[in-house]
Parts: sequence; structure tokens; C-alpha cells
Amino acid sequence: MESKKFILQESDIPTAWYNVLAEMPTKPRPMLNPATKQPLKAEDLFPLFTEEASRQEFNDTDKWIEIPDEVRDMYRIWRPTPLVRARGLEKALGTSSHIYFKNESVSPVGSHKLNSAIPQAYYAKKQGVTNITTETGAGQWGAALSLAARHFGLELAVYMVKVSYNQKPYRRSIMQTYGAEVIASPSMSTKAGRKIITDNPNYQGSLGTAISEAVELATSTPNCKYVLGSVMNHVALHQTVIGLEAERQMQMAGEYPDIVIGCFGGGSNFSGITFPFLRHNFTGEHNTRFIAAEPESCPKLTHGVLQYDFGDEAGYTPLIPMFTLGHDFAPANIHAGGLRYHGAGAIVSQLKADGLIEAADIPQLETFAAAQLFARSEGIIPAPESSHAIATAIREAKRADEEGRSKVILFNLSGHGLIDMAAYDQYLAGDLSNFKVTDEQIAENVSKLEKLI
Amino acid sequence: MESKKFILQESDIPTAWYNVLAEMPTKPRPMLNPATKQPLKAEDLFPLFTEEASRQEFNDTDKWIEIPDEVRDMYRIWRPTPLVRARGLEKALGTSSHIYFKNESVSPVGSHKLNSAIPQAYYAKKQGVTNITTETGAGQWGAALSLAARHFGLELAVYMVKVSYNQKPYRRSIMQTYGAEVIASPSMSTKAGRKIITDNPNYQGSLGTAISEAVELATSTPNCKYVLGSVMNHVALHQTVIGLEAERQMQMAGEYPDIVIGCFGGGSNFSGITFPFLRHNFTGEHNTRFIAAEPESCPKLTHGVLQYDFGDEAGYTPLIPMFTLGHDFAPANIHAGGLRYHGAGAIVSQLKADGLIEAADIPQLETFAAAQLFARSEGIIPAPESSHAIATAIREAKRADEEGRSKVILFNLSGHGLIDMAAYDQYLAGDLSNFKVTDEQIAENVSKLEKLI
Repeated sequence: MESKKFILQESDIPTAWYNVLAEMPTKPRPMLNPATKQPLKAEDLFPLFTEEASRQEFNDTDKWIEIPDEVRDMYRIWRPTPLVRARGLEKALGTSSHIYFKNESVSPVGSHKLNSAIPQAYYAKKQGVTNITTETGAGQWGAALSLAARHFGLELAVYMVKVSYNQKPYRRSIMQTYGAEVIASPSMSTKAGRKIITDNPNYQGSLGTAISEAVELATSTPNCKYVLGSVMNHVALHQTVIGLEAERQMQMAGEYPDIVIGCFGGGSNFSGITFPFLRHNFTGEHNTRFIAAEPESCPKLTHGVLQYDFGDEAGYTPLIPMFTLGHDFAPANIHAGGLRYHGAGAIVSQLKADGLIEAADIPQLETFAAAQLFARSEGIIPAPESSHAIATAIREAKRADEEGRSKVILFNLSGHGLIDMAAYDQYLAGDLSNFKVTDEQIAENVSKLEKLI
Repeated sequence: MESKKFILQESDIPTAWYNVLAEMPTKPRPMLNPATKQPLKAEDLFPLFTEEASRQEFNDTDKWIEIPDEVRDMYRIWRPTPLVRARGLEKALGTSSHIYFKNESVSPVGSHKLNSAIPQAYYAKKQGVTNITTETGAGQWGAALSLAARHFGLELAVYMVKVSYNQKPYRRSIMQTYGAEVIASPSMSTKAGRKIITDNPNYQGSLGTAISEAVELATSTPNCKYVLGSVMNHVALHQTVIGLEAERQMQMAGEYPDIVIGCFGGGSNFSGITFPFLRHNFTGEHNTRFIAAEPESCPKLTHGVLQYDFGDEAGYTPLIPMFTLGHDFAPANIHAGGLRYHGAGAIVSQLKADGLIEAADIPQLETFAAAQLFARSEGIIPAPESSHAIATAIREAKRADEEGRSKVILFNLSGHGLIDMAAYDQYLAGDLSNFKVTDEQIAENVSKLEKLI
């Protein structure tokens, strides 16, 4: 554990987010109105999202978007976060590669999710919104938004995926301690939830279902807006503080990454760590590889199709051009609840289609083995989500060793796993399994999408 | 949440611990052999503790004791920790006082306990010891020592107080993830444990009991040493990195504390935050107040007696001159498991007797109210132990406001409460109580001590 941290000062917190939409060689196709199939404009999202988030969603011209002072003030609770040279892990692997991780787990809610929760709550407050609602998987996003909502004096209702509500009661308690209302999803409080419970009383929920419920609440409640923790362009935008800080810290370390890795659910932390480095690939200055690490049980980027699909289970959202497994895909109950989502955001999907990023699908047991090795060599118990990035970093280090090369590998430690210890218990007891989805299952599920457009 | 952090670099990690024993106006009376009543020397502790820890225990001449490079290397995983001006809390209180906290919760195990776990494991390794054993209350110390033991390649057995073993299963899992063996105490694995279980089958354990079990294992196992997370002088010594860093950070803030507060179980984090500031009281340069915040259910400093007593339930340890409630005192099952200990370390006890520090006893409900206010205003959910310090800081800020004065108040946030959410659940549900101990109960319990010496 001779690891070395690279530490920035508060004055080094970025003053602007990096907007990759302005620089992508091929822009994603537009979101569509599912009824008319017409492209949407920012104003079309105003009933659902805050106006500022809606405008950011469509902004493909401004490369840099200023971070409001009120947001930077709150970032200062825990930012800048450390970049760490993981010498303990390197030694445990016996690799000649250099492994770095950006430690986003140091936020008070334990993950990177606050980076977007804060600006979204701020924009709601500024607009005069009183109530916001959202969904959460493992509870990382819900905990972050609960804190941000409390700070800006907003009421918050969180639909929490039922399997996580039961698996991770502590995250529910965290949200409640900050003052949020938490509802297990699917619930009887919405039409979407009632339908799903009626069709399948034992269904343990998914992010897609929880999004449907939150969207329904937002669109049927006065002065209430919906807030999303991943998938959307504006969320990816806010998360770029991760990569922008990491870029400066890699300069302090005197290296530049050959490979940058983030775990992948809808794209929030992956976008955050990679986009600022990706811009140097656009200019030809660097030729870094970017790897999205997804669960083999929910493998949209590696095994899904790029197609217009809904962002939610019930079909309330606009149609989004995404790598998808189908919006009614029911992922296995893996412990990485934040990665149990059927689709990838539009930007990441386009980048994947264009060969500008890669993806890897990782079995659950491999992620826990990686997590345990990391905990014992670096001291930090990682979130099950983040363990997908660690497992991928380990794969790449081993591959480089086999090829007789030394790589500079950077991954994002999106969160800690201190509230996921029940999962570790099961792993240590040998009670965890892999859940591989077959290509036939995926083909059947996505075949239903053709009628959407 | 306009809070402001003061951030040091890794090169600012102290190179020496501050040894208050060398400068105290009145030294504590010596530890005694319970059989002969003769004062002990360092060598007398060698069968139990590592030789280096034993020597440090008796070192009352060296003001500064060098921190080994191997220890500083591991401190770099998370140190230096931030000092934070808690403007959010100040605003919520409407106080004109300035409140600062040292954030020790950012360690990978979530508390300050690693500060002493690392050197103690290092000294064991250096001495050729292969096995170590300890006790833990809430699990903060056990988690820290598990990580340190893993790093230095030592086998570790942890006796965990039964009430916490059941209340806080995640901390048990953390220890196991790092590779430690965890036993609920009292257990049938030791003579001390078997006797207690036989006398009282439903006894939920205490730190005193768990210490007895660990001491028995250490003294009956070849090449095994006992390691303690609080009470002892050498533990207080190691924890002074907290206050030494905080002193520099207060200089960055351009202020000096009028009041320094730490929660109090056996003394580890209280000693760590206060001793470096206390030395400037010795010289007359400052006249800071120091307040040990203890639970009203376990009030040794505020309601106990200063007397020779055992450090453990079964009477295996040397006799220590301590403020005590009696070594067989059975504290109520409050959630601040780390504060459920009958006695105060010798140094702190002497300082209290000499009027150089103060103490406050805080009801459990007041600590949770303070914790909730802190979580909502500063974003960090505190450990139930640390909440005693927060409650005391709030008391002092209110008192200063009533007196029309503005104070600079510094407290130590010894750990986060993310693994204590079951306690918050109970608080939010209105299911928590206060547990006041009467002076009559204490008088009866300490009356039994007279025969010890």
C-alpha cells in the first residue's frame, strides 16, 4: 500500500463542464416524440425536466458550460477528489503497468452521483420548482439527490428499485435522514407501477420501471420536475468534473493514460471520467482507449442493438437513440444495482457505434474477486458497480503483461461499498452467481422494438 | 453548505507524534501489577503488547516520537484529512461562533482508528509476531486493524461486542472482507467469556469483556500479541496526527480554537485532537478549553471516580489509574458502541483531575438530533460516537450566543455513520431512548473497587 495520492486545492475545482456534444465527429440522432416521431427541441422537455437541464440536453455548440458559483460552493464539500496511483494493486498483480484511480467514493454519500444532483437541484430551485422526483437503483443517486434537495430546500420523492430497497436498507435510511420520501418500485402509487404489479406481483423492479413511476409523478403533480441521475446528455456534462480534475492530476503524476475505464449503467460516471480525455483523441493529440465496463447480465453496449427506444419501462419518455436490450428487459438481481439498466445514453451509444469507445461485459463473480483484491491491496472496499471498472483494469493490466508491454491505466472508483456489505457477505460465503444473458434472449427482446419507429 | 475545506498535501503528514506524557505538569500514577501492587516497567508489558508499543507506553521523556516511514506510507492512503469550516451548521444554528471540524471520517474504514492500527500492526510485524488479537465495540477499531493486519501480513482475531455484532453486521463483513476472523463477545472460546455467559446468558457484551477475551487469547497463544485501540498512552500518542494536522490547518484558516471537543470512549480520538493544542496551554501561550463528550449512559469522566481499576471485565490487565465506573459496569445498549467503556485512559484521567480538561455527558437523543442537523447542514452523516462531539459543539455555540460572545470551536468528526443507519432508522421512527445512570448506581459499582488496592 505504497499508493500515492495527487491532491488538488479547492481553487482547482473546474469552473466549466466539458460538453462533448460540441466536438463529436458524428452527433447522436435526435430524440423523438414517440407519438409524432418528430425530433424534439429543448422546449419539448420543459414539462418534464428543468428548463436549464433541457437546454443543456440539446446544447451541441458550446464546448464549455460554466458551472454556477452555487454549485461550485457545494462541490467544495468534498471536491476536488484524490487521484491515486494504485501501487498496492499493481504489486498484488505483479504488473509492470501503472494503474491510477480517481477516487469519487470520498463524497459524503459515497459516490460520484452528487456531481449532477447538485446542479439539477440548483436549477430546479432557481426556476421556482418546489418538488422534484427521481428513481434510484442501488440508492447512490437517490442519496445524492436527497442531500442536494435538502440543501436547496426542495421536497423530494424517490422511487427505489424494489430489489435494492430490500437488499440495501441503509441507503433508504440515508435518504430519509436527509429528509426525502422513499417508495419501493414498482409501487401502487402510480398507474405504471400498478400495471406491473398486477402483471407480475413478484417483480423486483428495474431502473426502467422506477423511471416510469417518477416520470408519471412529475407530469401529474403541479410544480414538480423529474430529475435523472444518468443516461441524459446533461448528466454526462455535469460529471465531466471527474475527468477534468483527473486530467490535471495525471499531469501532476507526469503521465497520460493509455486506457481509461469506467463502469457502465446509463453512462454517468463513464462519461465523466472519459469525455475530457476523449477530446484529445478528437484532435489526434492522443490515442487513448476508453472502455465501458458493464455487467454480463445487462450487456447493452457489448450485446445490445443501437436503435430508438424508450428510456423507461412504461414508455413515458421520448424515444432515445441508444444501445439497448429493450426497455422492458428485466435484468438479473445482481448487486451492482446501479448498472441494472437496459440502455446506454445517446452520446455514449454514438461513440460506441463510431468505434471511439469500447465496452467489456464482466461476470459478477469476477467483479467481486477484483473488489476483494482491491480492498486488500488498496484498503478501500469498492461499490459493486465500481468493481466492474476494477475488474476491467485488472484484465487490461494482465493483457499488457502478457504482451510484454507496460500501460498507463486509469479507472474511476465511482463509489465505496460500505453500504453493500451484505453482497460481500454472500460472496465470501460462496452464495453469489454469474447471470449471463444469451444472445437469443436479447434478440427476442429487441425484436419488439422495430414497431417503435 | 458554504463550508470551506483546508487541505494539506501528503508532504504535510506529520513526521513525529506528540507525546504529551513528556510535558504534563503532573504525570499519571504508574500502572500496577495487580498481584504485587508494584509499579510496572515497559518490559512487564512485553508478554502482552509489542515491545515498541510497551516502550512508548512508558516514555515520559521524549516530546516527539518519530513516525516510521512504513507507517507514513500507509497514512498516505487517506491522510492528511480535511479541516472544514462548518458554515452550513453555523447557519442552521444562527450562531456567531465559528465552528470547525477535522474530518477523520474520510479514511477507507470510515474513522480515525487507522491512525493507531497501522503503527501497532507495523511494530508487531517488525518484531516477528505472526498473530494479533483485539476487541472492538462498534467495529470501527476492528475494521481498521483488519486493514492494517492485512497490509503487514498478520493473522487477526477480533472479539466484537455482541450487541454491536448484531446491530452492525456490515462492520463484521468489512473485517471479514479484509480477511480477519470475527467472534461475538462474550464467546465460549475463552475462560472469561464462558464464565460471563454462564453467569448471565443474555449479556450483550461490553468492551471490558471483549478485552478480557482478547487478552486471554494473546497470553495463551504462541507468537500472538494483543493490540488495543484506545485507553493506552501509546494509542493516544499515535492519534496526535489528528491534532497536529488540525493545528496547521487552523493556521491556514487564520484562527486558533477557544474550545476543542472530542467524543470520549477510552480516549483515542479525544487525545488525538486535543493534545497538540493542549501543549500551547502548558506554555501559557493559549488558554483553550478542552471538552471530552461522553454518553450520559457511560459517564466516567463526569460521574466516575479516579481510582486504580482494571482495564477489562475479568481483571486480566494491569491496574490503571483511571476515572472509572468500575470494570464490571454494564453500559446500556446505546448505538455509540465505541463509547461503551467503563474507564478513561491514565493521561486523560490525570488531566481531568488537574482541571486541564473538562467533560460533558450527553443524552442519546440529543446526540441523534445533533447528528441529523449536521447531516442536513453539512452533508455528512456522522457516526453515533462522533455525534456526541457535535452535540457538545452545538451546546457551546448556543452558550456563547447567549452570552453575546463569538467563539472558535473545533471538534473532531471521528467517523461517518453510513454503517450505523439502523440507528438512524430507529431515531427517525421515534424508537430511541435516553439511558441515564444514577449516581447511586455508580457509587455502588465503584465501591467494590476499594479492595483492589
